[in-house]
Amino acid sequence: MDSSESVKVALDAMGGDYAPAETVKGAVAALEADPGIRIALVGKGDEIRQELSKYDYQKDRIEIVSASDTIDMAEAPVNAIRTKKDSSLVVGLNMVKNGEADALVSSGNTGAVLAGGQLIVRRIKGVQRPPLAPLIPTAAGPKLLIDCGANVDARAQHLVQFAHLGSIYMESVVGIKNPKVALVNIGAEEEKGNALAKETYPLLAASKNINFIGNIEARDIPYGKADVIVTEAFVGNVILKLYEGLAKVLMKGLKDSIYSSTRSKIGGALLKPALKNTLGQFDVSQYGGAPLLGLRGLVVKTHGSSKANEIRNTILQCLAFKEQDINGKIRKYIEEENAADANQSGREDRDE
Amino acid sequence: MDSSESVKVALDAMGGDYAPAETVKGAVAALEADPGIRIALVGKGDEIRQELSKYDYQKDRIEIVSASDTIDMAEAPVNAIRTKKDSSLVVGLNMVKNGEADALVSSGNTGAVLAGGQLIVRRIKGVQRPPLAPLIPTAAGPKLLIDCGANVDARAQHLVQFAHLGSIYMESVVGIKNPKVALVNIGAEEEKGNALAKETYPLLAASKNINFIGNIEARDIPYGKADVIVTEAFVGNVILKLYEGLAKVLMKGLKDSIYSSTRSKIGGALLKPALKNTLGQFDVSQYGGAPLLGLRGLVVKTHGSSKANEIRNTILQCLAFKEQDINGKIRKYIEEENAADANQSGREDRDE
Repeated sequence: MDSSESVKVALDAMGGDYAPAETVKGAVAALEADPGIRIALVGKGDEIRQELSKYDYQKDRIEIVSASDTIDMAEAPVNAIRTKKDSSLVVGLNMVKNGEADALVSSGNTGAVLAGGQLIVRRIKGVQRPPLAPLIPTAAGPKLLIDCGANVDARAQHLVQFAHLGSIYMESVVGIKNPKVALVNIGAEEEKGNALAKETYPLLAASKNINFIGNIEARDIPYGKADVIVTEAFVGNVILKLYEGLAKVLMKGLKDSIYSSTRSKIGGALLKPALKNTLGQFDVSQYGGAPLLGLRGLVVKTHGSSKANEIRNTILQCLAFKEQDINGKIRKYIEEENAADANQSGREDRDE
Repeated sequence: MDSSESVKVALDAMGGDYAPAETVKGAVAALEADPGIRIALVGKGDEIRQELSKYDYQKDRIEIVSASDTIDMAEAPVNAIRTKKDSSLVVGLNMVKNGEADALVSSGNTGAVLAGGQLIVRRIKGVQRPPLAPLIPTAAGPKLLIDCGANVDARAQHLVQFAHLGSIYMESVVGIKNPKVALVNIGAEEEKGNALAKETYPLLAASKNINFIGNIEARDIPYGKADVIVTEAFVGNVILKLYEGLAKVLMKGLKDSIYSSTRSKIGGALLKPALKNTLGQFDVSQYGGAPLLGLRGLVVKTHGSSKANEIRNTILQCLAFKEQDINGKIRKYIEEENAADANQSGREDRDE
């Protein structure tokens, strides 16, 4: 892609299980993939330079931003953000806040990325709770699962906003026109579910500018029956992680079966491309990281176990996010909601 | 199995997508599998007799109990139970209530089975909310998912009771000594999760007579890291149905891949037994139906799409449930809890 647009991504080079080797490798791969990308590698200069020395790359498109500290995977998120001012994550988030970068990508402590996004980059005015929204694989291509870990004990109003933010993302970044929105529930009928689902359904049904198709049961998610799968964070997290776990266990089971006899070993060798293709389709890491939607800049969380390829794909995602002006569209949606609310109160005033 | 014990199972012969053909076939297969089983086929006599005429079976071990009505899959549960007094489900549940059968098995309307169990068979005194507890397949064999659809918006106290009921079941019916109990959560640490998980964790940790190992993330469920997987019904239902959906979609994807080229077709033929073995391990229907625990008699819900084999396995399960005197053990647990509570209040009184 040769684009006149460009994006500058701050990469938390020290975050994740394979940092900084895989983060730096992924950054270099992203530079090669698109000329519109510039990267700030944030972290311990010596370690980053050592990794960078392994590659040929355009030196004017990568800078190193020094940060002496790191945040561990198990640290208490809010406390880590508040006290570790010179950690690679906090320094990177501040670059986004100060307009020195368009996006921050991190494979580090999820809670810290979520907390830091809200505390440092801050919400767009009117966004109640920024949701974490990964693309998940289905038989009908990637679909958006929203929210997936940012907001436990969410209320119905939050889920309605997730539906709008998710629709904007799917239409603009994934290119699905008028994306189908569904609410995760334990039955197809409107009256099914827990208190939150029952309260949310009529609000979604009454929402303008989204294509609400009703409830979706979990068994239909892998078929790709909805483009934007709306749920609160606890359930979303369970869905995402069960996807990961079940696909891995099935893949391991298949491998064990294949190596259990000569006959199946030969079969396995012949079948390998087909198996890899199918199971690869259900690899949750293929689409890159999950954006935290509704912040004043882009913050993207990638898996803690991310390798270079996921880092690369995530950085490329940031370009589409900026090109499509997702945040401009989110602001426009918020303005329209406010205008509708004002109108509504106006009418109510007259009714009195 | 040649057992001196015997069980009488009322089978809702009209419930499910393939009734009465598959229900009757399953009943005959169960009779053949164990001499301790007697069955009452409840439903429309003519249709049942016609199906029965296809088989050889011991006539003195099967009776037909006439019920003129049926409950559809989409009917409102409580209303159906209250108004359709001569439906196969209600007649069967009344047999359990009146001691004419030890168990009721149905593949019909889930909500109606759950509501009917509570309204007609009734709870054991002290059981707050009877949970639906299916066995799910994992890499380490079958594990119990409790609750899975009976009690949305459950409270922490209910989850603690699910842990105890589930432990009794896994130890007695599945034969796992001191079963490991875990709470479904979105992180491993005690302080993680939504309000319900945070409230439930310390209560489980303080519970005697269960082997609580802490939180379990959804990605670890398919590995079989816990024997009793405790969660409220909404999340449990999502887990169960995503298991079903994802396994089916992956299996279909594999089949499509195999038939995509000659090379993979040959490989697929050689690999077929191994593939079938692995994917068969993750078929949720293999363990039979899900019991509704804590009622005064046994009520078991099987999949709406049950074929004869699942019906047969479910009827066999009823024998183990009775032999192991699960309800006697549940009553004993309730008594001990009450005694502990009384003791506790005694101490509190003295403290004052």
